Amino acid sequence: MGIDPGLRTTGWGVIEATGSRLTHVANGLCPSGEGALAARLLSLHDQLTDIVLRFAPDTAAVEQTFVNRDAAGTLKLGQARGIALLVPARAGLEVGEYAPNAVKKTVVGVGHADKRQIDHMVRLQFPGVAIAGADAADALAVALCHAHHMQTGGRLAAALARAGA
Amino acid sequence: MGIDPGLRTTGWGVIEATGSRLTHVANGLCPSGEGALAARLLSLHDQLTDIVLRFAPDTAAVEQTFVNRDAAGTLKLGQARGIALLVPARAGLEVGEYAPNAVKKTVVGVGHADKRQIDHMVRLQFPGVAIAGADAADALAVALCHAHHMQTGGRLAAALARAGA
Repeated sequence: MGIDPGLRTTGWGVIEATGSRLTHVANGLCPSGEGALAARLLSLHDQLTDIVLRFAPDTAAVEQTFVNRDAAGTLKLGQARGIALLVPARAGLEVGEYAPNAVKKTVVGVGHADKRQIDHMVRLQFPGVAIAGADAADALAVALCHAHHMQTGGRLAAALARAGA
Repeated sequence: MGIDPGLRTTGWGVIEATGSRLTHVANGLCPSGEGALAARLLSLHDQLTDIVLRFAPDTAAVEQTFVNRDAAGTLKLGQARGIALLVPARAGLEVGEYAPNAVKKTVVGVGHADKRQIDHMVRLQFPGVAIAGADAADALAVALCHAHHMQTGGRLAAALARAGA
């Protein structure tokens, strides 16, 4: 499961790895709604928890956040990111973290790709799949990056073995 | 309950309001330990959840974070703050937020007090009470500020009524 956190909208994507074959399972967006900050974080927590319970992933990954925006924006993003890291950890999953450049390098082949290229390559990887939005495409890209890194490190087999798969 | 979030150490303080009388109940620190970020956030979540279950506060407040530090520090603080806001919200509590200046103004009387003055005034307010550290003193100051604002707004009585007190 890959997660692209944001206070307004968090993207998520679940893929399945069978040997070296990666297939799409589901993707979507968690809008945090309006209202008080604590209520929005609770909404994000509850939505992500539902997704983890529904798809029971073996492992999760969260994109490392760009910190080149303003301080208030960074703080908001950090708060959403805290929830995105917490939810899979509460479910007992290891949570990988990948820098945006690592994600881009896995999905597009170069570290300086823009968002449209990621979206394009994710759609190529999963032809015919409806992608809920740019944040969901980013989350699927994080999941692809995580699967790639775990496969090359032999860690995916270990995670699957632990999960009894 | 007041919370002063930090990724390394989060301070907490519980006070009791009986009419206009404010008494100390407990205070302490939640160290998040070493290790992966998700594990540290999970540890903070579990410690704060235990405290909320133990003291069953009627309402909670979290200090609004200073965003004048570097971006990486702001992101880390945001992640801890997300957990500090989530835990009382999950317990069904309203979560107040107060700017550092509002907290200082309540506790010290002026908005530009330094940390030592807050520590001093919190100790004066609760004579003989052992304070676990500067972050715990800050958390008690946030709790005092919240109680003050709820009392002046009549919201404390409403929260106590809702809680069946």
